[in-house]
Amino acid sequence: MRVLHSIAEMKEERRKLRGTVGFVPTMGYLHEGHLELVRVARAENQHVVVSIFVNPTQFGPKEDYASYPRDTERDLAMLKKEKVGIVFMPGAEDMYPARYSTWVDVEKVSERLEGAVRPGHFRGVATVVAKLFNIVEPTKAYFGQKDAQQLVVVKKMVTDLNMNLEVITVPTVREPDGLAMSSRNVYLSPQERKSALVLYKALTLAQTLWDKGQTNADLIRREMTALIESEPRVAGIDYVSIADAETLEELPRIDRSALVSLAVKIGKPRLIDNIILAS
Amino acid sequence: MRVLHSIAEMKEERRKLRGTVGFVPTMGYLHEGHLELVRVARAENQHVVVSIFVNPTQFGPKEDYASYPRDTERDLAMLKKEKVGIVFMPGAEDMYPARYSTWVDVEKVSERLEGAVRPGHFRGVATVVAKLFNIVEPTKAYFGQKDAQQLVVVKKMVTDLNMNLEVITVPTVREPDGLAMSSRNVYLSPQERKSALVLYKALTLAQTLWDKGQTNADLIRREMTALIESEPRVAGIDYVSIADAETLEELPRIDRSALVSLAVKIGKPRLIDNIILAS
Repeated sequence: MRVLHSIAEMKEERRKLRGTVGFVPTMGYLHEGHLELVRVARAENQHVVVSIFVNPTQFGPKEDYASYPRDTERDLAMLKKEKVGIVFMPGAEDMYPARYSTWVDVEKVSERLEGAVRPGHFRGVATVVAKLFNIVEPTKAYFGQKDAQQLVVVKKMVTDLNMNLEVITVPTVREPDGLAMSSRNVYLSPQERKSALVLYKALTLAQTLWDKGQTNADLIRREMTALIESEPRVAGIDYVSIADAETLEELPRIDRSALVSLAVKIGKPRLIDNIILAS
Repeated sequence: MRVLHSIAEMKEERRKLRGTVGFVPTMGYLHEGHLELVRVARAENQHVVVSIFVNPTQFGPKEDYASYPRDTERDLAMLKKEKVGIVFMPGAEDMYPARYSTWVDVEKVSERLEGAVRPGHFRGVATVVAKLFNIVEPTKAYFGQKDAQQLVVVKKMVTDLNMNLEVITVPTVREPDGLAMSSRNVYLSPQERKSALVLYKALTLAQTLWDKGQTNADLIRREMTALIESEPRVAGIDYVSIADAETLEELPRIDRSALVSLAVKIGKPRLIDNIILAS
């Protein structure tokens, strides 16, 4: 496994690769969800490149960039075990040198849900992903369904800008009790960890209502919200959304593929999760 | 010479090309300036692709998109004569389908000069050029120095987004009397055509003053402005600028490479021109 620390090295190594390249962009502090992306990438490509880069431009000024969990040694051991060929770990000053000034904006889908709570977040995401795609030049890039809106934004960018790669969605990996894997789960106290399960419970409730024939999105949102509010240690709900899975516009009625997503503060930590109801 | 009318065809043909690809993006209504770009591209690459696309997103609502001069038959004959391999002429609905929403913003350098007079212009330019680069995947792309700020914006985008190509600057081609070639020169009446020479005269004046040791940019701007204002049929000066050639920040003193540029209305038509004073 080669660990490359600069854009120039990565570009040089990329030129030497023949055949298909699967790419898994991450912010490190890897968990089983990331490893699942790596495994799918490895199954579908001749080479696998994983990037580890905590991207400063997707964090708001009051968010957790400085304190975002990092453990490079552990990450590299995990990737080695998965037989990854190349790990790309650029420095922030290499990615964003002095006088950096180019930004990719995916309008509309970036403005809703996470984007409404975290203004500028998806501008940072789209920009860093565009840069990484140009540096790594993957055949396919792998993203987890856990960050559903990120997937919508990245797929829209790839389509709109005519980028030459395929974006692959990999299902969310969950703990045995249903909690979606996330690097930020490390922030949860043992009690908060128990309360955090309410996100999955609310999504399961939506799925059950839908399976029973309920198509009234307002009613499902209200039931989900009531369930979440009944949970101790829930410090706030940013959103409970049932939206068109492509445009992310809120639906009054579930008459097409719908993204059911939510963002909830459990104590201080803020967690997100989602499911798709396929029409 | 193959003429391709869709993005899908162009991508397919691109995959078949082996070796270097030189790319000349144009809005058509070709003149000797464009042909010079084609010749340089041909000399430096195994294949040459020329695009003809009047990009709607770089025109303001009150600008000349609808009336921009077009003559496809003549353009194709000229390119055939230059032994171009592929001409790419996508439709506007192929480039910007319904719900298109991704934009590339090159901040700061886009906001000055032309950008100040034509808000949103360089957002449209950067976006269409990013798309064309992804579709054509050139080894080198060729732009005329005539559109100096466009070159600064495109080079900055390529650097910032880590795009895999080289941007080549080709010197401005001028009529025998000095007028810079431009598709918009067709708008000039015979009398305006004579007055239009004042742009070149003002730039020559700046060059002469600089050659004589003058480094006071304010003084040079004032002399240029006085010369332009003395010309009949000058209907307005948008700017007379002496700026850092990379950041486009106005210089009080010419102590580095300077872009001397100007935009002047001659009757109704609006013309631009520039020279570089290399420090």
